[in-house]
Amino acid sequence: MAGEDSFARGDDTGPVDVVDLDAVAFLIRPHLRPTTFIESEGLDEAVGAPVRIASETFQHTGSFKFRAGLAAALHAQAEHLITASSGNFGAALALAARRAGKRCTVVMPAQSSEVKIAAVRRHGATVELIDTTQISRAARVEELKRAMPEAHAVSAYDDPYVIAGNATLGAEIFAAGATDVVVVPVGGGGLSSGIVAARNRAARGCKVVGAEPLLANDAARSLRAGVLCKNDGEPATLCDGARASLGQRNFAILRRGIEDIVEVTEENVVRALRLLYDRANLKVEPTGALAVAAVLQEPARFAGARVTCVVSGGNVDATLYARLLAGS
Amino acid sequence: MAGEDSFARGDDTGPVDVVDLDAVAFLIRPHLRPTTFIESEGLDEAVGAPVRIASETFQHTGSFKFRAGLAAALHAQAEHLITASSGNFGAALALAARRAGKRCTVVMPAQSSEVKIAAVRRHGATVELIDTTQISRAARVEELKRAMPEAHAVSAYDDPYVIAGNATLGAEIFAAGATDVVVVPVGGGGLSSGIVAARNRAARGCKVVGAEPLLANDAARSLRAGVLCKNDGEPATLCDGARASLGQRNFAILRRGIEDIVEVTEENVVRALRLLYDRANLKVEPTGALAVAAVLQEPARFAGARVTCVVSGGNVDATLYARLLAGS
Repeated sequence: MAGEDSFARGDDTGPVDVVDLDAVAFLIRPHLRPTTFIESEGLDEAVGAPVRIASETFQHTGSFKFRAGLAAALHAQAEHLITASSGNFGAALALAARRAGKRCTVVMPAQSSEVKIAAVRRHGATVELIDTTQISRAARVEELKRAMPEAHAVSAYDDPYVIAGNATLGAEIFAAGATDVVVVPVGGGGLSSGIVAARNRAARGCKVVGAEPLLANDAARSLRAGVLCKNDGEPATLCDGARASLGQRNFAILRRGIEDIVEVTEENVVRALRLLYDRANLKVEPTGALAVAAVLQEPARFAGARVTCVVSGGNVDATLYARLLAGS
Repeated sequence: MAGEDSFARGDDTGPVDVVDLDAVAFLIRPHLRPTTFIESEGLDEAVGAPVRIASETFQHTGSFKFRAGLAAALHAQAEHLITASSGNFGAALALAARRAGKRCTVVMPAQSSEVKIAAVRRHGATVELIDTTQISRAARVEELKRAMPEAHAVSAYDDPYVIAGNATLGAEIFAAGATDVVVVPVGGGGLSSGIVAARNRAARGCKVVGAEPLLANDAARSLRAGVLCKNDGEPATLCDGARASLGQRNFAILRRGIEDIVEVTEENVVRALRLLYDRANLKVEPTGALAVAAVLQEPARFAGARVTCVVSGGNVDATLYARLLAGS
C-alpha cells in the first residue's frame, strides 16, 4: 500500500518503486538484533560533543546489511539469488538466503578482505572472485544472469526492499530518543536512503548528514552536480564498504532528503577508528568509522547538536586492524 | 534490612557484613548502563555451544567495576577515598568519586597498562605508582591511611558494597532469560561473589563457574584446600585484572556458592580474545576473555548447557591488543 507510508514516489531521475515500510519491518524485525546504542564520556570529551553511537557491529553477520539482505531474500520470488558485494552485503544475503531456504551466489572483487570472503562462504553461498580491472561487478552479474536465467539479481543498495530493510535501523534510532542529526556512511546509498526514509516518517525535524570517503566521493559530487556521477574504477579508500557508486533510487531519495555529505579524509577515518577503540571499546571496520570521522573533521557543523553516529559494521581483518591501531 | 535479601550471613571463615542488595541496586541502577547481551552464530560454531555474552565493555569506564565503585562511593561517609587497583577499579572509583563529589587516590603497580593509568587520571583521581617488588599495594594503602586518617580505604573486591554493586550485573543476567550456567572471571572475587549473591536470590538452579588464570590460581587452590591461599607476588598472567588474590568475604561466599573454577591457560585466553574479535566483533581485554576461554578449554563441561559468559571489561592498550591479534 503506497501513500504517506511509502518512502519514495517517483522523481525526475526516473520512477522509484514504492514499498510499504511497515510491511517490510513487520516481516523482518523478529529476525533482527536491535541496534546497540553506546555512549561514552571519554568519546564525547575527545570528539568535543555528546555523541550517541548506533552500532550495527553486533547485528547478524556483523553489519546493518543483514536488514537489507533479509528483506530482499524474503520478498524475492526466485529460489536463487545473485549479488555483487565487496563483502558485507554478500555475507548478509548469504545468511538471509540460507534462512529463507534459497541458494546464493556472491560476486566479490578479488582484493576483498579475507574475513569477508570467509564469512560469505561460511554462510553457505558460492563466491565468484573477479579482477575488477578486467570486468566490473555489474558485468559479471549480467553474465551470471544470462547463464542462470531463473536466478534473481539483488543490488546491495539500489533495491526498494534493501532500502526498506535499512529503514528499520532508522526507525530504531528515532524511537530511542531525541536526536538533532544522524550521521551515516554513504557508499551505494542503501543505508543513507533507508535512514532518510525512516526520518521522513518518524522525525521530520532531524537532519541526516552523509559521511563519504573523499577518495570515493561520487555521492557528494552527484549532489553538487544534480546528476548521478560515478567513481572511476575501484577507489583506493580504506573504507571497502563505501567503494560502490551511488545507485539511481538512492540518488533520488538522497537529493531530496539528505542535508549534506561530509567528504572524509583517510586520516580522519583512522583517527575515528582508534578513538572508538580507545574511548568506547568498540571494534569497527574503516567504513564503520566514517560517521565519527565526519564529526572529527567538521566539529563546527555539529556543535551544540545531539548527534547520533551510525557505525555500520565491524568486520575487518585482524592484520589490517592491528596495523591501523599500531599507526603504521 | 538483613534476612533472605542479604547475600551472606556469616561463615566459619569469620563474620561477613550484611548488605541489602535491593537498597544498593535502587541507589546505583539509575546511573549504570545495562549490560550488553551479544549472541553470534559464528561464535557458537567456533565454541561448539550456544553462548550468550554479557559484556560490560560498554559500562561507564569500560568495565563492570563502575557498579562496585559507585556503590562504595555513595555509601562511604568519608570525603576522600583510597584504593589499590591494577586499573579498572581505579578508573571506576575515580569516576564514581567525582560523581559523588569526593576526592580519590589510587595505588597502582608501575607495570599497569598505560591506558588504565591514563583513565584514572582523566577521571580526576591522584595516581600513586608503586614498585610491587618493593612494597605491596596493601602496605602502601596502609601508609597512605596513616598519613591521611580522614580518608577511607576501599577494597576493589573484599567489601560488602562492592559485592552488592556487582550483584546488579547478576540480576540483569538472570532477568534476561534462562541460563544453566554463568561463567565469570575470578581475580579478587568481587565479581564472582556478586554473581553468586544474585544467583542465590534470582536463579537457584543456575550454576556459577569461575574462570581464573592458571598463572594466578589462588582461588582454585583456596577452594581445594578449604583455606584462603595467596598468589606469590605479582603473577605473570596477561590477565591484569585477575592478578589480585581472593578476598576473605569473597572466599566465604564462593566456597559455598560457586560450582568450580576452571584454571585457564594463557594460550586459551589469547584464543578467546581473538575469537571474540573475529566472530563477535567484540574488543575485550585479556581478563575479559577468561570466561569464553574456560568454555574453549573444557568444552565437555558445558556441552548441552545454555551458557552465559561474562566479559568483564574491554580496556587494553592498543599495542598489546595489536600484538595479541597478530599472534606474536
